[in-house]
Amino acid sequence: MLKNCIVAQSGGPTAAINASLAGVIRGIQESEEYDRIYGALHGIHGVFREEFLDLTAMREADRRLLWHTPASYLGSCRYKMPDMEQQPEVYEQIFRIFEKYQIGAFFYIGGNDSMDTVEKLARYGEAVHSPIRFAGVPKTIDNDLMSTDHTPGFGSAAKYIATTMLEIAHDTAVYKVPCVTIVEIMGRDAGWLTAASALARNSYNQTPQLIYLPEVPFRKEQFTRDLKKKLQENEDVVVAVSEGIRDEKGEYISSATAAADRFGHAQLSGTGKALENFVRGEFGIKVRSVELNILQRCAAHLVSRQDLTEAEELGQEAVTFTRQGKTGFMTVIHRLSDEPYRYKIQTVSLDQVANAARTVPRNWINEEGNDVTEEMMRYLRPLVQGEVQTDFQNGIPVYLDISHLTGFTE
Amino acid sequence: MLKNCIVAQSGGPTAAINASLAGVIRGIQESEEYDRIYGALHGIHGVFREEFLDLTAMREADRRLLWHTPASYLGSCRYKMPDMEQQPEVYEQIFRIFEKYQIGAFFYIGGNDSMDTVEKLARYGEAVHSPIRFAGVPKTIDNDLMSTDHTPGFGSAAKYIATTMLEIAHDTAVYKVPCVTIVEIMGRDAGWLTAASALARNSYNQTPQLIYLPEVPFRKEQFTRDLKKKLQENEDVVVAVSEGIRDEKGEYISSATAAADRFGHAQLSGTGKALENFVRGEFGIKVRSVELNILQRCAAHLVSRQDLTEAEELGQEAVTFTRQGKTGFMTVIHRLSDEPYRYKIQTVSLDQVANAARTVPRNWINEEGNDVTEEMMRYLRPLVQGEVQTDFQNGIPVYLDISHLTGFTE
Repeated sequence: MLKNCIVAQSGGPTAAINASLAGVIRGIQESEEYDRIYGALHGIHGVFREEFLDLTAMREADRRLLWHTPASYLGSCRYKMPDMEQQPEVYEQIFRIFEKYQIGAFFYIGGNDSMDTVEKLARYGEAVHSPIRFAGVPKTIDNDLMSTDHTPGFGSAAKYIATTMLEIAHDTAVYKVPCVTIVEIMGRDAGWLTAASALARNSYNQTPQLIYLPEVPFRKEQFTRDLKKKLQENEDVVVAVSEGIRDEKGEYISSATAAADRFGHAQLSGTGKALENFVRGEFGIKVRSVELNILQRCAAHLVSRQDLTEAEELGQEAVTFTRQGKTGFMTVIHRLSDEPYRYKIQTVSLDQVANAARTVPRNWINEEGNDVTEEMMRYLRPLVQGEVQTDFQNGIPVYLDISHLTGFTE
Repeated sequence: MLKNCIVAQSGGPTAAINASLAGVIRGIQESEEYDRIYGALHGIHGVFREEFLDLTAMREADRRLLWHTPASYLGSCRYKMPDMEQQPEVYEQIFRIFEKYQIGAFFYIGGNDSMDTVEKLARYGEAVHSPIRFAGVPKTIDNDLMSTDHTPGFGSAAKYIATTMLEIAHDTAVYKVPCVTIVEIMGRDAGWLTAASALARNSYNQTPQLIYLPEVPFRKEQFTRDLKKKLQENEDVVVAVSEGIRDEKGEYISSATAAADRFGHAQLSGTGKALENFVRGEFGIKVRSVELNILQRCAAHLVSRQDLTEAEELGQEAVTFTRQGKTGFMTVIHRLSDEPYRYKIQTVSLDQVANAARTVPRNWINEEGNDVTEEMMRYLRPLVQGEVQTDFQNGIPVYLDISHLTGFTE
């Protein structure tokens, strides 16, 4: 009788990944079919090491606090599963542990690389005729997962970016001198997050005046012309750029040497700084760069209620689908309409998701390649709606205790 | 009959500088003595150019929105008044404009350099036996003004820094690999803002594990020893550093070439990046730097209610004091007790304020120079208390229209 579950989180943290965890926990707690919930610490590593946090009896108050606690409550990892043909012993070990803990379902909340892990486990499970069900729950602020309208974590990051951009618009408007501000936003290959900065525009400000995404080659000559034109219209110009913008040869604009992580992804930084130096050299005016950095993915004090609601649903529904006998799937959001915003939760087979990235369609970027179109705005608007009240104690937000990760207790 | 007033803002924007403006407007609106309120655009420049926004009839709803709108609603400037002995014509011009507009009182909301402007105007006024009253209202996130317990803008920046630091603690705790995160915080000569990062500590996290302020010379050897020790205790170590930390010779750690602004202040950037590179070289482990940049001064969605309340009182009381005949003063906060927190608004003569900076007392920093003491925490705690509800429209904050600064209307 396989009645227990494992849930784990993997990849870069977001402000919504714990809402999905809360959804999985709730789904399991409310089911009659499943018994214990083991939270594996640090992704699949926690399974190998049998490091589990027993979440079975998590109280509702804690689950609510977990819902809007930033980053991965269970910790994370960046681990690429070997091919099962080459290293079957890795899979044998994991499945022995599954058996030991009487695991009936495995839930993995993560992005592209994490879905690769679930997909491989599901495939091995199928090969050995295991009854265990494997489910992926999407997350990534980058919004680059295939087969889903958008990904949990993106809406909250988008709201943070747009809010910050509006506040930067107020800040940069104060001096009456020509001034350029470069805001560097996350996004290696996909410009979704940078596009979201356009949500800051309102009746009294057009910030950011220029937007550059990785989907269109970045030409310094064009940028110089764009900037010259905007500086004629406004004294201060704010430019939103993705960290991953590249020139026509495909080389990163970033001035820093790009090192590669273990998945072969380039580790970028310094795109904003590189453009800052370029503008200073070309224009000789006041220029500053601001890198939103990890703040855009962990600012739980400013999240989208819509985002967290969907994140929870994707987790909870993953449990429902496994109870219906499904395996080897990821839950996804299928949009039915923009306005009023309607969607439904579905599943897709994991082999349609893993190891591919969804970029911004070219026709959602304007012809000049320096702004986004109204289609993009219609897509973005529903995703940042609604706020979540953060509780404060002594002026500082209250989040769920992560002493199991920090190793510190007072 | 001199019955009108001018109010202006100067220096770097903060999240509380408009609360002081709201206080001045409220004070004048509620007085019988004063008639029109001219808001000079871009500080003293607006007086020279006679660019005024008539604030006389500002409605209460707008004044409430102004209260928590970020950055300087009237715009700002960085202008150093010449000596009146050397260029009396500058003063003559200003006082002619004062006469033309029948100005009875002048309110300047700003920091050190701005108080220098008010002080010079007051001194000239006295020399020519002008009946005009001159008042300074303090602001600066740096908290380095003399003669006041603290400055408006500091509490909100401190709350933003502590909240962000807590969220970074959650973010950095997820991976089980040695990792160092350097968080660069504003503060050229004074470490107040960096010290505030310690408010992020709670029952489950001790982030930041190390704190370095400009008040203590930064020794790389000591830093290496400190970091080694902390890395033995924790897998991930977060270091809070002021942008202005210097070595024993007084040279900035910043890797960037320090250019000087027109007040002779060094324009710093890159301290975090410099330390990031240093740690990578010495330790060879994962390291990242985060620069909070202008976000820490303009994040109006996350302000301290205590800070905005005091900022408003300092503006409103400045009006009251001029009505009592006072001139050449700045309003200040005099703390009566830490717990319960009690204070009163007083005045100090401007010559006690201008052109001097208040740094962190050495005994509020620990002996090793890598953390702050309990005295500092007692000082900081009351300043970040209380939240302000931001209104959102379509998921983005609603602030007061600044089309008079941006030149843009839909």
